[in-house]
Amino acid sequence: MTEERWRQLTYWPLLISSIVFILVYSWQVIADLQGTLYLIARVFILLTWLSFAADYLVRLMLADTRGRWFREHIFDLLVVALPVLKPLRLLKALTLIHSLRRTAGTALRSSIAIYGAGAAAILIWIAALAELDAERGAPGANIETFGDAVWWAFVTITTVGYGDYFPVTAWGRIVAVLLMCGGVALVGVVTATLASWVLERAAIGRDTDEPATRGQLRDVSHKIDDISARLPPPPAPKESADAR
Amino acid sequence: MTEERWRQLTYWPLLISSIVFILVYSWQVIADLQGTLYLIARVFILLTWLSFAADYLVRLMLADTRGRWFREHIFDLLVVALPVLKPLRLLKALTLIHSLRRTAGTALRSSIAIYGAGAAAILIWIAALAELDAERGAPGANIETFGDAVWWAFVTITTVGYGDYFPVTAWGRIVAVLLMCGGVALVGVVTATLASWVLERAAIGRDTDEPATRGQLRDVSHKIDDISARLPPPPAPKESADAR
Amino acid sequence: MTEERWRQLTYWPLLISSIVFILVYSWQVIADLQGTLYLIARVFILLTWLSFAADYLVRLMLADTRGRWFREHIFDLLVVALPVLKPLRLLKALTLIHSLRRTAGTALRSSIAIYGAGAAAILIWIAALAELDAERGAPGANIETFGDAVWWAFVTITTVGYGDYFPVTAWGRIVAVLLMCGGVALVGVVTATLASWVLERAAIGRDTDEPATRGQLRDVSHKIDDISARLPPPPAPKESADAR
Amino acid sequence: MTEERWRQLTYWPLLISSIVFILVYSWQVIADLQGTLYLIARVFILLTWLSFAADYLVRLMLADTRGRWFREHIFDLLVVALPVLKPLRLLKALTLIHSLRRTAGTALRSSIAIYGAGAAAILIWIAALAELDAERGAPGANIETFGDAVWWAFVTITTVGYGDYFPVTAWGRIVAVLLMCGGVALVGVVTATLASWVLERAAIGRDTDEPATRGQLRDVSHKIDDISARLPPPPAPKESADAR
Repeated sequence: MTEERWRQLTYWPLLISSIVFILVYSWQVIADLQGTLYLIARVFILLTWLSFAADYLVRLMLADTRGRWFREHIFDLLVVALPVLKPLRLLKALTLIHSLRRTAGTALRSSIAIYGAGAAAILIWIAALAELDAERGAPGANIETFGDAVWWAFVTITTVGYGDYFPVTAWGRIVAVLLMCGGVALVGVVTATLASWVLERAAIGRDTDEPATRGQLRDVSHKIDDISARLPPPPAPKESADAR
Repeated sequence: MTEERWRQLTYWPLLISSIVFILVYSWQVIADLQGTLYLIARVFILLTWLSFAADYLVRLMLADTRGRWFREHIFDLLVVALPVLKPLRLLKALTLIHSLRRTAGTALRSSIAIYGAGAAAILIWIAALAELDAERGAPGANIETFGDAVWWAFVTITTVGYGDYFPVTAWGRIVAVLLMCGGVALVGVVTATLASWVLERAAIGRDTDEPATRGQLRDVSHKIDDISARLPPPPAPKESADAR
Repeated sequence: MTEERWRQLTYWPLLISSIVFILVYSWQVIADLQGTLYLIARVFILLTWLSFAADYLVRLMLADTRGRWFREHIFDLLVVALPVLKPLRLLKALTLIHSLRRTAGTALRSSIAIYGAGAAAILIWIAALAELDAERGAPGANIETFGDAVWWAFVTITTVGYGDYFPVTAWGRIVAVLLMCGGVALVGVVTATLASWVLERAAIGRDTDEPATRGQLRDVSHKIDDISARLPPPPAPKESADAR
Repeated sequence: MTEERWRQLTYWPLLISSIVFILVYSWQVIADLQGTLYLIARVFILLTWLSFAADYLVRLMLADTRGRWFREHIFDLLVVALPVLKPLRLLKALTLIHSLRRTAGTALRSSIAIYGAGAAAILIWIAALAELDAERGAPGANIETFGDAVWWAFVTITTVGYGDYFPVTAWGRIVAVLLMCGGVALVGVVTATLASWVLERAAIGRDTDEPATRGQLRDVSHKIDDISARLPPPPAPKESADAR
């Protein structure tokens, strides 16, 4: 079996595994599960983790040159190592759908807007869960409810950073750093999309000064071919080759 | 009656309704109205809300395919649901005016600067009002005067976020999140407009290296047509077609 | 006398007036002048203000259509009204020098970097002075030394906003809002300049796929003219005109 | 010996000197060295400083026109003056490697991503060390451990700025300002790279409307040369020259 075939087979199971992870993790953290229910939730989370780890190992086995595959899939290893990053699989799925729609201008920008908003929403939700999980009960911590954690995630991803809530534990700070990087990328995506729009709009209404298009040049090329066909054949093949 | 006709008829009434909403809401919040005056203000605000809700329903009725219209006008539903978003109608009006001016380079950038500044001003004003309305009197709240609320809105929309003032209520935080998103978009618009300017300037003064224009290529095409007209007619039509 | 001539005559006096304003205002605020020295400093500042106000009035008188001139020079009125904005005259001077150097790519980006850094430095210096002037001695204020004010200005213009220092007076907040807007513009200019560089670099090394240049198309056009000259003259002038 | 030759000879020694500086400085600050070990560390740091100062002086001597070289290498003087900036030599080295890879689109963006991430990592590490060195033990300081310093550096470079940690000493604030400038540049680089990607994607799938390429125009040019070779020679050389 090839790696490509394996990826097609595991596409839906891994997507469902990501969704199960989000749902069970949300339930565990928001309800602050204790005792048996906590254990059940952790078992489910462990199973989703095992599904990702197994997928990683199988794909490593199936790869033609394992050393190269390993170097090219560092990010996949990170996802296996850090369970918090697992729902980024959902984003990856979105990216796959996205790549099917290589369309121009407005359509691309709509796609970016939709997927960007989706990515931001998943990132904020997961970061809030992970932050609350890490901080709740820690000495000196101020993020104690899920509402506060979501509010903190919004304040962080937009780089506003009031400082009314902030992480104090090592894990909480790692989550925060990942979220801040997401925030910088988010601002970048918004700006880049708007810049693309402004540049396209700035080009409207000055057709004569616009770059000549490939279509236009092909028309010209056809006209020249037409003239060429109506002329007498070249006097000597060698001369013509020299002229080139 | 078509939806287009309805939109033309309701353009000015809805614009005036938006302005009435801003004025009455500002008066209610800044003056901290109580008793009868508060009731009068709320009735006016309710009337502006009803005008927007009625407009939404009538347009839904007039639509050719209601399911599609509903999907394409989610934002309009949001405006009806969240009264705070209502003055964004003013921005929409500005956008309509804007679309009439599809002009190149500098003119586009001036338009973006003017409408961007207008949108930011409306957003800051409304957010400050809504924030003060939500926070005033809440336990632990620190935004207690309109001056502080406006200052907070500026600190938030520019993503500075000192943390001297911040919302503590759920509604106040929702308003803050909308304002932060506005701030990210604002930074994006400023950057995109500047980028468009820098890219245009960078192209000045190296005419030979610039992309060939459509005007230039059209001139070349005319010259070739001219040559074509001076040549003998094609020897055989089929051959010419093959050459193409 | 035309407005153009007046502007040439007053270019250096107004530039010197701006520099005197910065020096005297810096001396007054940093040394926290009292008594006679304070009065002397204020008289100098008043004189620089009068020079700007007089310049504004004379130019309004000299304008061909005063109503139009007034609408087009709202910013100049702002500078006269808000003494704090006066040193922006220096930036304006820089902009004038800048417009002489309409050069491509790297040169433009160097200019933007130099003028951007200059503008940021002037903005930070003046904002720190104005902030200290407004806040010092106010009840509850925490910006009490010039060092703290400069630090606060850096934290604000980069939109970091720790919140260790923040303005509490109305004037101090107006200065802060202007500085924040400067910060958003600064981030925008940095990004736009970098974007221009990245886009130019991304185009290097794929010459064949690059847009055809005007120089290239001019060469092609000359070749066609050459062919045209070697062909027999058009059979009938009218036919040729039709072909076009 | 030319300056070019000197730079080739000193490339590796200075790179190693930068790495020694980072390692020894990290060891001194993180372990909070005292007594003899502190002296040993400082001697090593002094030696790396001397290697940079000597390199600067030798290159100044070797320069053809020293005044011009001095003006063009202000940044190198800064690096000698501020030891904290020394590891930026590493970035310079990365930039040298980078310039060898003038490749298009995706490859350029990968390079920028890798070098940008490398630069950000070095900047955060060095800033955290310098900050801790400056702040530890200062009255009123709140950055007391290396973990807190790294966290502070992340919060600062992303311009989030919670305000839970902030510098209070003059040196600490200078380090912070440099880091903030790095943060603004970082956001700019991320955005610019994303903008380049969006603009390239927006162009896919509308080939006919794309700017005509140089390759296309060269093909057309060759066809015209071909026709030219098959036509009778120009009737008179002078006429042909005029036609051009």
